[in-house]
Amino acid sequence: MSVKRRPGRPRLTEPSPEHLARRQQLIDTAAEVFRAKGYDAGSLDDVAAALDLRKASLYYYVRSKAELLYLIFDRAITLALSRLEEILAVEDARQRLALLIRHQVLTIAGEPGLFTVFFDQRAGLDHERAQEIRAKERHYLGVYAKAVAQATSESVIPPVDARYAAQAIIGMTSWIYKWLDPKRDDPEQIADTCVRLILGDRP
Amino acid sequence: MSVKRRPGRPRLTEPSPEHLARRQQLIDTAAEVFRAKGYDAGSLDDVAAALDLRKASLYYYVRSKAELLYLIFDRAITLALSRLEEILAVEDARQRLALLIRHQVLTIAGEPGLFTVFFDQRAGLDHERAQEIRAKERHYLGVYAKAVAQATSESVIPPVDARYAAQAIIGMTSWIYKWLDPKRDDPEQIADTCVRLILGDRP
Repeated sequence: MSVKRRPGRPRLTEPSPEHLARRQQLIDTAAEVFRAKGYDAGSLDDVAAALDLRKASLYYYVRSKAELLYLIFDRAITLALSRLEEILAVEDARQRLALLIRHQVLTIAGEPGLFTVFFDQRAGLDHERAQEIRAKERHYLGVYAKAVAQATSESVIPPVDARYAAQAIIGMTSWIYKWLDPKRDDPEQIADTCVRLILGDRP
Repeated sequence: MSVKRRPGRPRLTEPSPEHLARRQQLIDTAAEVFRAKGYDAGSLDDVAAALDLRKASLYYYVRSKAELLYLIFDRAITLALSRLEEILAVEDARQRLALLIRHQVLTIAGEPGLFTVFFDQRAGLDHERAQEIRAKERHYLGVYAKAVAQATSESVIPPVDARYAAQAIIGMTSWIYKWLDPKRDDPEQIADTCVRLILGDRP
């Protein structure tokens, strides 16, 4: 039996904005549970309890705990990749690298719980999904390495190995998830510090 | 019954060099097991199997899995703190900061498995031991922050918040444990890259 769609009508299978918002909330809550307990020890029961839902209701939004973990990873890497196009449109080597450094600081500082799971619970992903995330990370690293190479070739920074330097910059800015205290620390000032350390204090 | 010690003789309770070497091997093996499986899933049986020992023999060296985890943490932080005195004796601000950066890179790159457990399995430590490690880490961070402040005040690096900058430098260099491939990557060259990124390419 097939159902004919009327032109202009939304597909019945398309999730509503409410569904998407609820799912987003689920992802945030699961990230908090997995961050606090680890992926192995954290359960769908914990996630349901934190949302004051019955566990059965979760299956309306996700198929499994494994899918929930994947959605966390997908969200994290999507956030990280989100502004790259825009930044790559900036031609000035110094400005581009500064924007990449700021972007990475503000992305991590904006969602420290999400990125704690992203960085520490990788072992919970199945092989295929881990490969998919890794490919996107390689792309992300490549963008930083290219920006470093450009900055080096224009003498904006000293001559350095582009891949090592990209990893160093990503490390400097990722590490924030380990020490950021949202009540004490100011992400904008952290971003300024990282930019100055790499690019000096010229505007 | 008491045993009288003859003067000049080693105390019977003092561990022999063989005992200490064996214990060190146990710590290294446990770090590898906890790195691969996580602390919760890794067991003393796994450690014994990896060493081709019976589990009962392990208790000659350590009292428990928790003690073994603590010994890993203690070894890691001891390695990190080991060369600080010597580096602090260097008065030149640029040279001192360069030495601190190199030290941190080479420490992590020399024992990536040990530091993977150190950075990722913190939750397995009991409260008191976690506090002890944290206090030593604060001291370590303080040394970096002071070196940054000195470098800033002597215009060796641009004016930056000393604590944020110290965390950035420690992040840049710690992150190596996530991506270092000992077969592919050269720790000395990584150290050079990090020093140049922070201090420029003046000698």
